[in-house]
Amino acid sequence: MRSHYCGQLRSYNVGETVTLYGWVDRRRDHGGVIFLDLRDRSGIVQIVSDPARTPNSYQLAEKMRNEYVVKITGRVTPRPADSLNPRIPTGEVEVYADELELLNQVYKQMPFQVSTADEEAVREELRLKYRYLDLRRDRMTANLQLRHQVVKAIRRHLEDEKGFIEIETPILTRSTPEGARDYLVPSRVNPGEWYALPQSPQLFKQLLMVSGFDRYYQIARCFRDEDLRADRQPEFTQLDMEMSFMSQPEILQLNEDLVCHVFRTIKGIELPRPFLRLTYAEAMDRYGCDKPDTRYDLELVNVSDLFKDSGFKVFASAIASGGMVKVLPIPGGNDAISNVRIKPGGDLFKEASEAGAKGLAYIRVRDNGEIDTIGAIKDNLTEEQKQELLDRTDAKPGHLLLFAADKTEVVNKTLDRLRQVIAQQLGLIDRSKINLLWVTDFPMFEWNEEEQRLEALHHPFTAPKPEDINDLKNAKAQAYDLVYNGVEVGGGSCRIYQRDVQERVFEAIGLSPEEARNKFGFLLEAFEYGTPPHGGIAYGLDRWVMLLAGEESIRDVIAFPKTQQASCLLTNAPSNVDEKQLKELQVQSTYKPKT
Amino acid sequence: MRSHYCGQLRSYNVGETVTLYGWVDRRRDHGGVIFLDLRDRSGIVQIVSDPARTPNSYQLAEKMRNEYVVKITGRVTPRPADSLNPRIPTGEVEVYADELELLNQVYKQMPFQVSTADEEAVREELRLKYRYLDLRRDRMTANLQLRHQVVKAIRRHLEDEKGFIEIETPILTRSTPEGARDYLVPSRVNPGEWYALPQSPQLFKQLLMVSGFDRYYQIARCFRDEDLRADRQPEFTQLDMEMSFMSQPEILQLNEDLVCHVFRTIKGIELPRPFLRLTYAEAMDRYGCDKPDTRYDLELVNVSDLFKDSGFKVFASAIASGGMVKVLPIPGGNDAISNVRIKPGGDLFKEASEAGAKGLAYIRVRDNGEIDTIGAIKDNLTEEQKQELLDRTDAKPGHLLLFAADKTEVVNKTLDRLRQVIAQQLGLIDRSKINLLWVTDFPMFEWNEEEQRLEALHHPFTAPKPEDINDLKNAKAQAYDLVYNGVEVGGGSCRIYQRDVQERVFEAIGLSPEEARNKFGFLLEAFEYGTPPHGGIAYGLDRWVMLLAGEESIRDVIAFPKTQQASCLLTNAPSNVDEKQLKELQVQSTYKPKT
Repeated sequence: MRSHYCGQLRSYNVGETVTLYGWVDRRRDHGGVIFLDLRDRSGIVQIVSDPARTPNSYQLAEKMRNEYVVKITGRVTPRPADSLNPRIPTGEVEVYADELELLNQVYKQMPFQVSTADEEAVREELRLKYRYLDLRRDRMTANLQLRHQVVKAIRRHLEDEKGFIEIETPILTRSTPEGARDYLVPSRVNPGEWYALPQSPQLFKQLLMVSGFDRYYQIARCFRDEDLRADRQPEFTQLDMEMSFMSQPEILQLNEDLVCHVFRTIKGIELPRPFLRLTYAEAMDRYGCDKPDTRYDLELVNVSDLFKDSGFKVFASAIASGGMVKVLPIPGGNDAISNVRIKPGGDLFKEASEAGAKGLAYIRVRDNGEIDTIGAIKDNLTEEQKQELLDRTDAKPGHLLLFAADKTEVVNKTLDRLRQVIAQQLGLIDRSKINLLWVTDFPMFEWNEEEQRLEALHHPFTAPKPEDINDLKNAKAQAYDLVYNGVEVGGGSCRIYQRDVQERVFEAIGLSPEEARNKFGFLLEAFEYGTPPHGGIAYGLDRWVMLLAGEESIRDVIAFPKTQQASCLLTNAPSNVDEKQLKELQVQSTYKPKT
Repeated sequence: MRSHYCGQLRSYNVGETVTLYGWVDRRRDHGGVIFLDLRDRSGIVQIVSDPARTPNSYQLAEKMRNEYVVKITGRVTPRPADSLNPRIPTGEVEVYADELELLNQVYKQMPFQVSTADEEAVREELRLKYRYLDLRRDRMTANLQLRHQVVKAIRRHLEDEKGFIEIETPILTRSTPEGARDYLVPSRVNPGEWYALPQSPQLFKQLLMVSGFDRYYQIARCFRDEDLRADRQPEFTQLDMEMSFMSQPEILQLNEDLVCHVFRTIKGIELPRPFLRLTYAEAMDRYGCDKPDTRYDLELVNVSDLFKDSGFKVFASAIASGGMVKVLPIPGGNDAISNVRIKPGGDLFKEASEAGAKGLAYIRVRDNGEIDTIGAIKDNLTEEQKQELLDRTDAKPGHLLLFAADKTEVVNKTLDRLRQVIAQQLGLIDRSKINLLWVTDFPMFEWNEEEQRLEALHHPFTAPKPEDINDLKNAKAQAYDLVYNGVEVGGGSCRIYQRDVQERVFEAIGLSPEEARNKFGFLLEAFEYGTPPHGGIAYGLDRWVMLLAGEESIRDVIAFPKTQQASCLLTNAPSNVDEKQLKELQVQSTYKPKT
């Protein structure tokens, strides 16, 4: 076996005889001296062979090619002063290859070179098809090792510090009546019936609370048959937790302990405590979204009251029909952003209209509080209104104020989008910052326009805040999301555990007792036999690791991911199967390929 | 939150005020004093309430019923000398309930009483339907906690002592061309195509070795659509490991380290090292099976040479047609086992014939080396043969010798079965013993009578022993199984990593290069780009935990298992699904229920 990993060798190993196993990352022939960069999962070390000092290995060393698999035994030696390599951790040493053994070779042309894949920006299709070669790259090796370290840190904290126990829940389970599309699995033993793969272990973890397991966690595989976006996969991994006898503040504190432990272990960073907490209402008001990126300011300002009687009809009528007017003040925006970009045809106008806005009004703040805008706005603004506007938006000379006036959702969506785009363009995002915050007090319900009824924003087992119990339709939920640099990485809630509260929530969403029983039968029945107060949370592990790794795609932190067409380019899954298999399962495809 | 778990309280807590949460296990009213056994996942503690000492709680305590959920705050008090309870760890103390809060009640008749379910032997269907109540029982709580502790011990040893990293492999993958039946999942995005759920991560873990991850493990969910036996589940959990640059002896040693660590951590037992190693040939010779239970002796003795020219035709002809004659010597069998049981109609005869034997010959050893058997045997046995038989089987007066004479497989199967049944009946199995042994040197191939060709005993990537490479058809494999008290709990092999060896193995099983590419394409291609020597193992975690827990069924160590009809009695999975879901997937069932 090996005595060391390649990447472990340092100057304190000088003089030791070591045995290494690995892949030839690069081979260089410096006229009579062969240098091999030997790579294993820990990194790279330089191997040297020449006819004088390592006669046993030289002949074979000459024949080495990239990605050959070798075993090397040799002496660790300090590098000559002029060939130190500060870019790699082993850069002060090299190993004289007393013995070299070729364990395996490469028989085919490499589809891409492992050692230079990053510089050459190999296209993702090729990387996924030859994933086993892609995973040899430093970056991917580091990502999967990081993922392992994150999971390890999570497990140990929950087990050793918090008394959680890990329990596995089924993958072959029952189709859930709500939520995203299920993956289905035909049953051979029960023909005509289907299993579903779980979208989350939600029902099982609540049942475990009914069982008294009180602090449960699982690194759980979940499945959603959605149309894929960049950060979605048909199967993904969730850190799933549920606990009994804890209030929302206790749950959040326990989770902050966990998150801080992960950052401390993985990044060596001590996060400030407690995390910022924003109510949903506050987040929407100040940032126009429920997962704000607070690494930069650019806060929105509601100015509806200033413009409700304005002669500028666009503003006044938006407000009159129940909407609002909000401003995104941009310091230095006058110089940075031209009118052309704001007006129809401009890129910012385009962003706004994709968010649903019909136009984008603006004011430029000049010296001495002068403003510069279209006449229709300027002429309808009194001096007092102008002053109040400048005060409220804290506008200084050079500020650009962008206005959205429309229905509340459109205003928020528009300015949220512009805020993010502009922060990016103006370089306002400090990439070294790590901002974590809780968004709380989500509404219990949202209005389903199509079905003309309220529906649960999360799921119908989310508990309302106790003080809102008598006005359920407008109640806030005991629900919380954790937002990391503008990305939702976790979310959960306290659950309803009292029968009468559950009945009132079903009533609010227009679900009769019979319908409720049809949809959630076994969970409701379980709730009859002594259910403890409980709540939980789930973290999207892939996304969390992606952020920690500084990657842009979750595919880069998953060993064998699928494409956006939900296929695996390595194994060619999904694929056709034998007719015999389908016959045994008593199923068939109804798909008729177009000819 | 709680200050303690119920089961933690001891006499050193006396005088403390504690806050407990849990379920009322039993309530007893001793005329003016109420006793509540309060239960949580850690165990039980006695709560006391009476009007004089705990006036605040008494009124409510009177109303408590079994399985109500409560919060209690009170003082830990020593029990009076006459009510100490040595049967529970908290039996020296009780808690006076200064405050009692009812968190939730039971609204329905309990389907069974949690506190007495064990004594009442609740039938399994009811336990599975109300699994959340079943899991409240001490025994089930302990089983799931044990499972968690086993997994935790495994993870920590592999991570901290052995440098393994955990990597997740896909659940939605490609149908494998060999092995058991696959569970299939229709793809909506790629209509007409199917994913398969993995029978094991075999191909992915080998690819991870090609990637250089060199020590991989995963607690992996696996799926096999088999007709279920008592110890099988449609989905099961495997400790899956693969490692590079290690020889078979090194792999076995590393695994013994792991197994010993688990037994040390879980049971406080130091297992003797190294584990016994039997070759497959030796195991078959001495025990008639490849997973012998060595907690008791009863070894088989091959006496074919003694009887090959025997006048007793049954023996001689079995040997002449390529079979054998073996003896199972049973000390004290003369008294314990009557002729009636051995002869047609007897229970041992029945066992033998279910194993394929046509009959069961026997010899009873009397005082002074006299033997007692049917004339046809006695008359055809010379004095020398008799003496040799007694010597070889180490037979003493009182021994019963049971003979099987037939084809080798039938002889082994028969005597293996009898050996197990008789050991059980005669109480020869020391239940306190833990015997672990490796079976090695399995044959590479077995003859497939139906297809008239050799086929791989494990899978066609199993490496032959190097010394057998030139006689592959008779070669032994670098394969190994771990056997725990007669149950196979793990198995693995060193894999082929050299292209020429792989080609010769395919040739031996009659697979053309084209067929091989069709069946194993992407793995074979991966092997072209620098494959390290590697090998691995997989343990059946459910079975291992079952043995450690002393349970008879793996269902008792799985939180939410399925029945032998592959259904979940709790959720009623599998179930019918909406026609709309099937339409979206472009699949349909072809099953026509009989009317």
